Amino acid sequence: MITLTSDFGLKDPYVAEMKGVILTINPKATLIDITHEVEKFNIRMAAFTLASAAPYFPQGTVHLAVVDPEVGTQRRAILIQTKKSFFVGPDNGVLILAAQNQCIEHVYQLTNPKFMLPKISSTFHGRDIFAPAAAHLDKGAEPTTFGAEIKDPISPEFTKVKRANRSLIGEVMHVDGFGNIITNITETELAQGTAEKVNVDLLGVSLKLKLGKTYAEVKPKEPVALIGSHGFLEIALNQGNAAEKFQVKAGDKIVVTAA
Amino acid sequence: MITLTSDFGLKDPYVAEMKGVILTINPKATLIDITHEVEKFNIRMAAFTLASAAPYFPQGTVHLAVVDPEVGTQRRAILIQTKKSFFVGPDNGVLILAAQNQCIEHVYQLTNPKFMLPKISSTFHGRDIFAPAAAHLDKGAEPTTFGAEIKDPISPEFTKVKRANRSLIGEVMHVDGFGNIITNITETELAQGTAEKVNVDLLGVSLKLKLGKTYAEVKPKEPVALIGSHGFLEIALNQGNAAEKFQVKAGDKIVVTAA
Amino acid sequence: MITLTSDFGLKDPYVAEMKGVILTINPKATLIDITHEVEKFNIRMAAFTLASAAPYFPQGTVHLAVVDPEVGTQRRAILIQTKKSFFVGPDNGVLILAAQNQCIEHVYQLTNPKFMLPKISSTFHGRDIFAPAAAHLDKGAEPTTFGAEIKDPISPEFTKVKRANRSLIGEVMHVDGFGNIITNITETELAQGTAEKVNVDLLGVSLKLKLGKTYAEVKPKEPVALIGSHGFLEIALNQGNAAEKFQVKAGDKIVVTAA
Repeated sequence: MITLTSDFGLKDPYVAEMKGVILTINPKATLIDITHEVEKFNIRMAAFTLASAAPYFPQGTVHLAVVDPEVGTQRRAILIQTKKSFFVGPDNGVLILAAQNQCIEHVYQLTNPKFMLPKISSTFHGRDIFAPAAAHLDKGAEPTTFGAEIKDPISPEFTKVKRANRSLIGEVMHVDGFGNIITNITETELAQGTAEKVNVDLLGVSLKLKLGKTYAEVKPKEPVALIGSHGFLEIALNQGNAAEKFQVKAGDKIVVTAA
Repeated sequence: MITLTSDFGLKDPYVAEMKGVILTINPKATLIDITHEVEKFNIRMAAFTLASAAPYFPQGTVHLAVVDPEVGTQRRAILIQTKKSFFVGPDNGVLILAAQNQCIEHVYQLTNPKFMLPKISSTFHGRDIFAPAAAHLDKGAEPTTFGAEIKDPISPEFTKVKRANRSLIGEVMHVDGFGNIITNITETELAQGTAEKVNVDLLGVSLKLKLGKTYAEVKPKEPVALIGSHGFLEIALNQGNAAEKFQVKAGDKIVVTAA
Repeated sequence: MITLTSDFGLKDPYVAEMKGVILTINPKATLIDITHEVEKFNIRMAAFTLASAAPYFPQGTVHLAVVDPEVGTQRRAILIQTKKSFFVGPDNGVLILAAQNQCIEHVYQLTNPKFMLPKISSTFHGRDIFAPAAAHLDKGAEPTTFGAEIKDPISPEFTKVKRANRSLIGEVMHVDGFGNIITNITETELAQGTAEKVNVDLLGVSLKLKLGKTYAEVKPKEPVALIGSHGFLEIALNQGNAAEKFQVKAGDKIVVTAA
């Protein structure tokens, strides 16, 4: 089984070309799209999305992720082997969040031309290098045969939550299609010192919110704070779009205090 | 075979999480997306889309549909068994149009924790309850083992066509991606008392339209009325967008009279 | 294996209906979407997209493409057999670019009702004629049994590059989701008489561009000319949207001169 994550969109032939390459090498592969609607070049959004979905896939799944602004330069192509599965993509951080959650065992550089297309373009390694690597891995090729082991994959500092007095200072990690504002503050962090309500400061707007369990606990279009399905603090509107209402986007700061 | 319908969109990890859950339980499942671009919380649009597509799938298909504004509240989770297939989702009407067309045999509540993920979030029953149920059903689990039979699934009154003198008073059921205005008036209803032309009143605009068979029967950008591929009266522009031209959306009233 | 290309979008039930029809006839078919986001009725865009993706699929693949503004009229439904694969769709040019690249062997009209749904609508031949034809072909039906061979499939004149003095006069063939401007000027044509830089005239704007190999060779948001992954001259911005910046769309003229 191979999952695919990219910023290629669904309008262009790029995703289909990767799938064609995979199925030519490995006609029995099961292909599952995670998303191809990552914002162009947004490595962090792809890393978050892949890390959210990967835990739900079976042992041995190969996860292919291509958000690759530096394609054609010296950035490395890598394969990460974890206790549970494999990750294939550029060495720019897109794979690392998901892989770390599964305990990384080895990282190999992809340099063996045997696992690439015969002709490598300078602009589309998704098709020419990553898709064939994923197909061969899924077919049973040994990870050690793809290239030399490396010890220094790039690990971007996706922001960590800070504490100041009684407040948690975090960041909006993702705005989903419902407009739910998903932060990087986890259930564990929040549990220390919070009650049934929280004060939330979002871009200078102060909100006193119920810390609920479901969206429907408040009236339609009313805001609520809750721990979402991935274990992070979310700010949402019941049947409404919180990100639009509060004009919030990924990367914005959020301060949370027990009320 | 399992089909998936939701309002989750394709940008977020939600659809992939459901698929990962299904494939972990049932690695041989064939997964087909009906759509994930239902307008957020629009149960009626999901019900229409599912009812349109379901007839074309094989005997025994499991149809999973999740448009679930009340997730986490007391609304029930259900499984509908028809003469032809199975439907899994929230008990809010999203399944009922499609299921009724196939003759409903039994409705069961989903309460058996054996067919759920070990940890149930309050906000994502698509992943935690409905996806595992669909996977187990597709794998052969007995419908009777999911929970108690119920006799009162929610059946929303999607509007019916009325008659007034020589007119039919219906409603716009769906506007498709081409801008075709699909109404709830069927071929059978229309056949009684109509000629080669019809007068259509749409939000106060009166149109005298040819009752054609194909879009290309009128000049490009000209309006035409016809019975669409699902058997309902449509108002369309040849190679144009009728809904934009007439500023019409789902739910709007339409009055049709033989010309 | 069957690929699907259309202008149906992903919001409506149309694509799923085609897949349901295929899987009812041929439950073992592997279905791969090329794209369903072709601009409505844009035969040229569909032809380009299919021609880009088809080379990467295995021998024997059936490619189904439905962009069909004249559905329901006298336009023919056809099946093209090439040295490598099969193409099924309307006879309006949508299949021809991709098929020509694989050496066309035979073209048959689709007239045998045995390979159609029992009831043919006037507006959705994708579901009623093309999907069943693709399913039966993939299942092994003989191409000769679908209908009479024809010798005159429609072959639209997608524009050819002209020469004037030292310049190449071409056309923008496609703007991809990254905003990359993909022209119809090939690597071979460009190689004759160009140096490390090219002068590009796009809608009256003159650019002197580096002829690079990768997007990242220039600074972020700077323009670069390069041969893209399909072998055509592209104008791109590193990590930016060239089509937006230069207000260019498919069909626009481009003049290229060695600098």
